[in-house]
Amino acid sequence: MLSLTIARSALLDALSSTAKVVEKRNTIPILSNVLLHAEGDTLAVTGTDLDIYLTTRVPATVTAAGSITLPAGALHDIARKLPGDAVVTIEDGGNGQVSVRAGRSRFTLGSLPASDFPAVLGMADSHAAEIAIAGGLLAKLLSRTAFAISNEETRYYLNGTFFVGVETPEGPALRAVATDGHRLARVQTSAASGVRTDVPGVIVPRKACGEISRLAEAAGEVDVRLVIMAARIQMTVGDTVLTSKLIDGTFPDYQRVIPTGNDRIALAPVEALSAAVARVGVIASERGRAVKLDLDGRGGLTVIMRNPEGGEAVETLDVEHEGAPFGIGLNGRFLADILEQVGGDTARLAFADPGSPVLIRPRQGDDALFVLMPMRVA
Amino acid sequence: MLSLTIARSALLDALSSTAKVVEKRNTIPILSNVLLHAEGDTLAVTGTDLDIYLTTRVPATVTAAGSITLPAGALHDIARKLPGDAVVTIEDGGNGQVSVRAGRSRFTLGSLPASDFPAVLGMADSHAAEIAIAGGLLAKLLSRTAFAISNEETRYYLNGTFFVGVETPEGPALRAVATDGHRLARVQTSAASGVRTDVPGVIVPRKACGEISRLAEAAGEVDVRLVIMAARIQMTVGDTVLTSKLIDGTFPDYQRVIPTGNDRIALAPVEALSAAVARVGVIASERGRAVKLDLDGRGGLTVIMRNPEGGEAVETLDVEHEGAPFGIGLNGRFLADILEQVGGDTARLAFADPGSPVLIRPRQGDDALFVLMPMRVA
Repeated sequence: MLSLTIARSALLDALSSTAKVVEKRNTIPILSNVLLHAEGDTLAVTGTDLDIYLTTRVPATVTAAGSITLPAGALHDIARKLPGDAVVTIEDGGNGQVSVRAGRSRFTLGSLPASDFPAVLGMADSHAAEIAIAGGLLAKLLSRTAFAISNEETRYYLNGTFFVGVETPEGPALRAVATDGHRLARVQTSAASGVRTDVPGVIVPRKACGEISRLAEAAGEVDVRLVIMAARIQMTVGDTVLTSKLIDGTFPDYQRVIPTGNDRIALAPVEALSAAVARVGVIASERGRAVKLDLDGRGGLTVIMRNPEGGEAVETLDVEHEGAPFGIGLNGRFLADILEQVGGDTARLAFADPGSPVLIRPRQGDDALFVLMPMRVA
Repeated sequence: MLSLTIARSALLDALSSTAKVVEKRNTIPILSNVLLHAEGDTLAVTGTDLDIYLTTRVPATVTAAGSITLPAGALHDIARKLPGDAVVTIEDGGNGQVSVRAGRSRFTLGSLPASDFPAVLGMADSHAAEIAIAGGLLAKLLSRTAFAISNEETRYYLNGTFFVGVETPEGPALRAVATDGHRLARVQTSAASGVRTDVPGVIVPRKACGEISRLAEAAGEVDVRLVIMAARIQMTVGDTVLTSKLIDGTFPDYQRVIPTGNDRIALAPVEALSAAVARVGVIASERGRAVKLDLDGRGGLTVIMRNPEGGEAVETLDVEHEGAPFGIGLNGRFLADILEQVGGDTARLAFADPGSPVLIRPRQGDDALFVLMPMRVA
């Protein structure tokens, strides 16, 4: 018969993370609930969508240890709407009713037994790697690759970010790769300890990437711990533990897609090129967002978009490049996405021919790498 | 053959207002366009949805006077995405193509002839009243009544706010009324000049109310001019003129709905009551948002919400009231809407019996008035 008292701020902290994992609409009622487990001087709150399990521990005064489940949305709303300094008492009245009280507010919520809550994925699984990395750095790996994750359910093995350990001149690095077949993002860092290069990579599903990224970002310079197992990944940051299933599939041989012989190089100012692509995009039709990049061979790059229903936009900017004039068509939105993540002031665009993928990297600073397939343009 | 040069900021100003009126999806192509009319040292930009016409005049260097129409969305996007200090040249090339240039950006947009643009509603109509009122005050009248406008298309005469001149002890006042049959808001001000009480009121459609409110709000303490005609209303603020059709119908006799004999009075702190209603609302189901208000006859007001699928929320607060215990059911969201607009620290709630409408007013400060129909609660 759980009974506890907790500061509203602690309850809100615990629910802000865990309630986000819970799906809004569920056919199985208990999946709309969070699990509350009170023991010692701690309340542990767990939310799940059956793929991701997120548990946060917060301090509480436990007068009777126990476990119950309560509706995630309602409990989160209550915590949000109570005054900042409220002290909340949660008391299981038995018979499926739990009382939540604070000041002159009193809520009675229907509960479901904790024994019906899906069991949290354990750690029994032998684990392949245990990595420590600054939260902000991990968030960066995820945010710079997220845009390239595929939405096509038929290619389920592309519906996530591939994490793999690789050897680099600076030592073992943690590499993140995402692709949807039209573009690819590959970002890595050697500032992570415990990376193993002798085990296969894993595919972390899109939603888990988002949750990990959010929690890691909040950790900032503090290290988070990633444990990679055969079929799941677990992240620990402070008193929060996230466990997610991995995508059971084989990530394609992405290295094969990365062009190696592209020798037409243009060094373009990222901000000016982004702005040009955004501006010419205003005349895009719903049917097409193809932009044409024209290198004039004398340091001029012209960005052109034509709307088949009428209208044209042309913008010229200065770049560094050598060689003969060259033109190529690209998806303007995809190019904009890459320019947003490429990093640094100057992007190095390497072309082969109008029918071959473009390699885009920051001119200097790090070893991020992006590939963009060409498009036919009129 | 229109040709002009204009500061990007002036072009953006003109388009920010006018492009908002233009509907995103149009089956008639010219309704997606704005009309540009260049003459003297002014560019006039007009957008319309055939109900509302909005014209803004901005300074420009006109090298050739003339009129054309251009896609509102694209032109607005261009103005938004150009650098802050850009100078824009717009030039009608004839043959349906207009060139828009700024710095190293060049756009070619398809235009349609100005002669095809719907004629702006003129002022030939004899007008019934010409009112001057501070923009902020007019915006307030509109924002305090907007929530009660009906969405039911069958009751088209309730799809707007009713404006009428009324006699008050402080002299003629401009009154705004909106109702959807479940709640009613009536707000007025005598700080408007030119109000006439000898002419019938008019119903301003919801969308026009929104646009007028937005422009009036931006005017702040500056006076705006409202001209009310038989079938339209015109607002002038600075160099912007909005003309809207009125709803051709009869606004119901709203005064009949306002209870006069409600003698069970409770004076409730607005903020605390709003917070209580919001908090108990967390257990609302999709089916019902009914709250029960229970006055205990000793200064206690209990706010109760019961979810038929399970769950209950109860909150008590202190109010001033006299008389026997009394309970009534109300729509919680509608009550919250009224509390947001009632104004002042304390609301005066006047009840008759559980089956009769409630009258809600600010305890002091102004003569705003709100009516809320009761609901049956379990």
